[in-house]
Amino acid sequence: MESLSPAALQSILDDIAAAMAQRSDRGQPASYIPELGRVSPQHFGIALCLPGGQTLLAGEATTRFSIQSISKVFTLAIALGRLGDDLWQRVGREPSGAAFNSIVSLEHDQGIPRNPFINAGAIAVTDAILEGLQPRDVLAELLRFLRVAAGDEDIHIDKTVAASERAHAHRNTALAEFMAAHGNLRNPAALTIGTYCHQCAVEMTCVQLARAGRFLAGLPAAPRLVSPARVRRINALMLTCGHYDASGDFAYRVGLPGKSGVGGGILAIAPGRASIAVWSPGLDAQGNSRLGAEAMEHLARATGWSVFG
Amino acid sequence: MESLSPAALQSILDDIAAAMAQRSDRGQPASYIPELGRVSPQHFGIALCLPGGQTLLAGEATTRFSIQSISKVFTLAIALGRLGDDLWQRVGREPSGAAFNSIVSLEHDQGIPRNPFINAGAIAVTDAILEGLQPRDVLAELLRFLRVAAGDEDIHIDKTVAASERAHAHRNTALAEFMAAHGNLRNPAALTIGTYCHQCAVEMTCVQLARAGRFLAGLPAAPRLVSPARVRRINALMLTCGHYDASGDFAYRVGLPGKSGVGGGILAIAPGRASIAVWSPGLDAQGNSRLGAEAMEHLARATGWSVFG
Amino acid sequence: MESLSPAALQSILDDIAAAMAQRSDRGQPASYIPELGRVSPQHFGIALCLPGGQTLLAGEATTRFSIQSISKVFTLAIALGRLGDDLWQRVGREPSGAAFNSIVSLEHDQGIPRNPFINAGAIAVTDAILEGLQPRDVLAELLRFLRVAAGDEDIHIDKTVAASERAHAHRNTALAEFMAAHGNLRNPAALTIGTYCHQCAVEMTCVQLARAGRFLAGLPAAPRLVSPARVRRINALMLTCGHYDASGDFAYRVGLPGKSGVGGGILAIAPGRASIAVWSPGLDAQGNSRLGAEAMEHLARATGWSVFG
Amino acid sequence: MESLSPAALQSILDDIAAAMAQRSDRGQPASYIPELGRVSPQHFGIALCLPGGQTLLAGEATTRFSIQSISKVFTLAIALGRLGDDLWQRVGREPSGAAFNSIVSLEHDQGIPRNPFINAGAIAVTDAILEGLQPRDVLAELLRFLRVAAGDEDIHIDKTVAASERAHAHRNTALAEFMAAHGNLRNPAALTIGTYCHQCAVEMTCVQLARAGRFLAGLPAAPRLVSPARVRRINALMLTCGHYDASGDFAYRVGLPGKSGVGGGILAIAPGRASIAVWSPGLDAQGNSRLGAEAMEHLARATGWSVFG
Repeated sequence: MESLSPAALQSILDDIAAAMAQRSDRGQPASYIPELGRVSPQHFGIALCLPGGQTLLAGEATTRFSIQSISKVFTLAIALGRLGDDLWQRVGREPSGAAFNSIVSLEHDQGIPRNPFINAGAIAVTDAILEGLQPRDVLAELLRFLRVAAGDEDIHIDKTVAASERAHAHRNTALAEFMAAHGNLRNPAALTIGTYCHQCAVEMTCVQLARAGRFLAGLPAAPRLVSPARVRRINALMLTCGHYDASGDFAYRVGLPGKSGVGGGILAIAPGRASIAVWSPGLDAQGNSRLGAEAMEHLARATGWSVFG
Repeated sequence: MESLSPAALQSILDDIAAAMAQRSDRGQPASYIPELGRVSPQHFGIALCLPGGQTLLAGEATTRFSIQSISKVFTLAIALGRLGDDLWQRVGREPSGAAFNSIVSLEHDQGIPRNPFINAGAIAVTDAILEGLQPRDVLAELLRFLRVAAGDEDIHIDKTVAASERAHAHRNTALAEFMAAHGNLRNPAALTIGTYCHQCAVEMTCVQLARAGRFLAGLPAAPRLVSPARVRRINALMLTCGHYDASGDFAYRVGLPGKSGVGGGILAIAPGRASIAVWSPGLDAQGNSRLGAEAMEHLARATGWSVFG
Repeated sequence: MESLSPAALQSILDDIAAAMAQRSDRGQPASYIPELGRVSPQHFGIALCLPGGQTLLAGEATTRFSIQSISKVFTLAIALGRLGDDLWQRVGREPSGAAFNSIVSLEHDQGIPRNPFINAGAIAVTDAILEGLQPRDVLAELLRFLRVAAGDEDIHIDKTVAASERAHAHRNTALAEFMAAHGNLRNPAALTIGTYCHQCAVEMTCVQLARAGRFLAGLPAAPRLVSPARVRRINALMLTCGHYDASGDFAYRVGLPGKSGVGGGILAIAPGRASIAVWSPGLDAQGNSRLGAEAMEHLARATGWSVFG
Repeated sequence: MESLSPAALQSILDDIAAAMAQRSDRGQPASYIPELGRVSPQHFGIALCLPGGQTLLAGEATTRFSIQSISKVFTLAIALGRLGDDLWQRVGREPSGAAFNSIVSLEHDQGIPRNPFINAGAIAVTDAILEGLQPRDVLAELLRFLRVAAGDEDIHIDKTVAASERAHAHRNTALAEFMAAHGNLRNPAALTIGTYCHQCAVEMTCVQLARAGRFLAGLPAAPRLVSPARVRRINALMLTCGHYDASGDFAYRVGLPGKSGVGGGILAIAPGRASIAVWSPGLDAQGNSRLGAEAMEHLARATGWSVFG
């Protein structure tokens, strides 16, 4: 199966886009951030980057959407580059078994979030990068990282979404203050949360996102941003924790490391084979893109791509 | 790295065995089952099976030990063969974020265990296989499966361990009765728990266990016991849930699907490359073999084997 | 207000019975025990005993019903008489903040139930009394205690209810086995749970129950079964824990120590003034008699009886 | 016992003060607020007010201490006066079964705190009073209430303690933000928490506190601040929830409604008989004054005062 030609893959993508266009059970866009709630669930786009340097696409793959929690993958890469394994003093590496915004395990674990992909953990990661810097510097670094990774300068933060997010950040602020109470926050909560809201408001297209993920797939054309050993570890975290309390289900159905965002995007990695981005704004009960996950499952089945054999 | 010769691999195994022999911080054998508590933490063995049919070993790789929860992988394979996806009506596929014997999430989830590898889930799996049969039939089927998988008739249940386990099964009985209260048990708790205690008391050597795992690695010499699609799914569950609340850590450090048992064994799968078994009875705080996990990490680093790139 | 004459009190009881007869929102009888589920929610009875020795009644106050968890008050009195403060090694004295049959806090507290009035705690109490005896002896002692307390020999166990209860005791068995796993059970779970199911199946009338509660109210005519200091402590436990996770609400609305049962009965104590029993089988969401609690609230308001001023 | 003369009571108080002076196991002052941590655990004072108008005292009953959470009783009284039963839309009336500052049940209950005496609940109460006002107005009203209740104008807020509290309010801020996320906060978290920190920093002597509690005991000399029905309800809440997850224990040992503060004070109410205040800064594991609780137990035993008979 590994010898699927780009043409054969394009045909698979076209099939997926066609199938998804028929679907009426699309889930609902995230409602807790007004700006996201206004996006129509009718959108669907998919893009993938191959070892040969090709980028294939289908559907609305060049429409921008809010990457939201997918940004956590990139801030994690930056934080590991900056702090190395010291980061793990502040955040764990275990699936949480709870919702993305749960505060329960934070109390149980004395202010140490379970992993860097639940909200509390991602806030701790952002807080770690922010130490000694200004929010604008951190956001500039994130954009620089994304632009280099994607080979595309046209990646920006949507200020309106960031502001909407900031205005509805009570729960994330609660998580930050709770960590502060346990000595696990280095900056004022308002500063860290402000930065976090902006990082989530980065907007990208499927094409840009798939290209930005190439370094995680180890594709030859990808810029070398992170060592192979660290790439494997980021992929491991995506696989075990990338879809909140549906991570096990995604691993079972799709078999690839992936990270979702409440904007409806998913980035998935087929190591050595492809970096894949999909977008459909309707979410399931766990806050993951319903059609996005199905498209990934369809693609994995059609290509035989799986890290599990 | 994929072209490591058997001789090079043997040298790695020898290095690992030598390094582990030096270690004094070995953890403690499981104490809650007296028969297991009597085993010395000094043991260490490792074996691996390769695509070419070779089996390499080092240390005490031909000494029998109690496979305990590693049996859950094989009963899961049997249950999926028997019930197919209907099994997932009775057990989930998510990491639990809690200890192997926790009853908390069972209450939260109305008697549906989080996954088939925590105790509650494995009891549900055994209960599913047992329906309409006698315990002896189920245990005979498990032994038949293991013998075919390993290509070795000399695999048995240690009756003394089974009895010791049965005499200390209060917590597992509580899990079973709790599921019964939610209509998620088909047999009398005593029957299911009796079967479960015997399944955990299967004893195997590292060589036997590595050979029994070949079908999960998709090695050419392996008997075709399960379809490739299902193999991938079992591997996915091992990766996300195979080490209880240290599953994320094992994925991060080792990068291979694995399943541990409180007897000190670990089975790990490098798809297409190797089936690996290791044994050292001393456990860490999460109930996984301390040196076993370190040996797996050492091996993964030395070989470059990882599902994550 | 304290000088209310028996005639005035009778008039209050009559008003309450008349008001309750009009009510259509009666809640549903307990459904998890078939025998209890068959009782009509139309029943209502109330009885109270006064310092002068009078027993007043209204409605179906001489119809027998299953006292269920109200039995926990009497087994607690027996256990404290037998073990004294040693009992508190095995069960706590704090409100649980959780449902009557929750197992969660049991895991958190290492097998020590929060208080003697949630199921786990009452099972521990029964187990403590049972040690060294046979179930029949314990049940005989309980009946003897109730008969002396009520001054009425005609108090029995409903064998059909006991059997129904035993057949649906999975969850209580889970609690018992869980305690056994933590060394907090002295008898085989089946023996303790069998005894517990029979104790819950005692049937009494409102008149009998109000009379049986006189010793807790310190009424002059009551047999001296328990020291005044211990009576106060039992009343304290009833007030803080007697209605599961609605105990605070009952204290707020009624202001008297009370204990409810899923058979629809409630026993309440106005120290020095009255022992009160009410019965209506329809339950609210917390498993307490809906009309029973309202009748108690009505009575407390009309009489001014409250332990709080 | 009810006829104990003031002289007999004075003798009991003297005995208690003498006994407490001998004690070396005094617990540790609250450490999480630096200003409180500096207070010596050697202090002990007690005062009680009687129906005849007398105030008896022993030990350091005229030394000021930080009343901390005891302030919650008075803000509750103010809030009930302002909002009536509408307050119960925003906060529950059940014991929480968890620590005073736990956030877990808040997640479980969708942002509704379990009761007005855990931190989250008290913050909701303060937030309710604050709506439409400025912090200074609310604090002025609280001081006015306390001064009228105690008949003493010399009651103030310790600004240094308030500032120390404000600087360490991360956890309380987390609680407030979490409630805000569920729509259960009317003011900016910083405003509500600032007010809350000042309310906790009121300082009073045992004599002042005992006098301020007279209206809850229904003493003839007390100003009529709250209706008798509401007084009973506040007492009920103190009894079931006043000592966090040691409320059941206090009810069992002392048998009187009471409210503790981490400054080491306890206010207890013997309805119709006395209002009692005690102070000793050393705390037990639940955050309640160790010697304070023992002194209350001693007093209850010596006087026979108990709401339970």
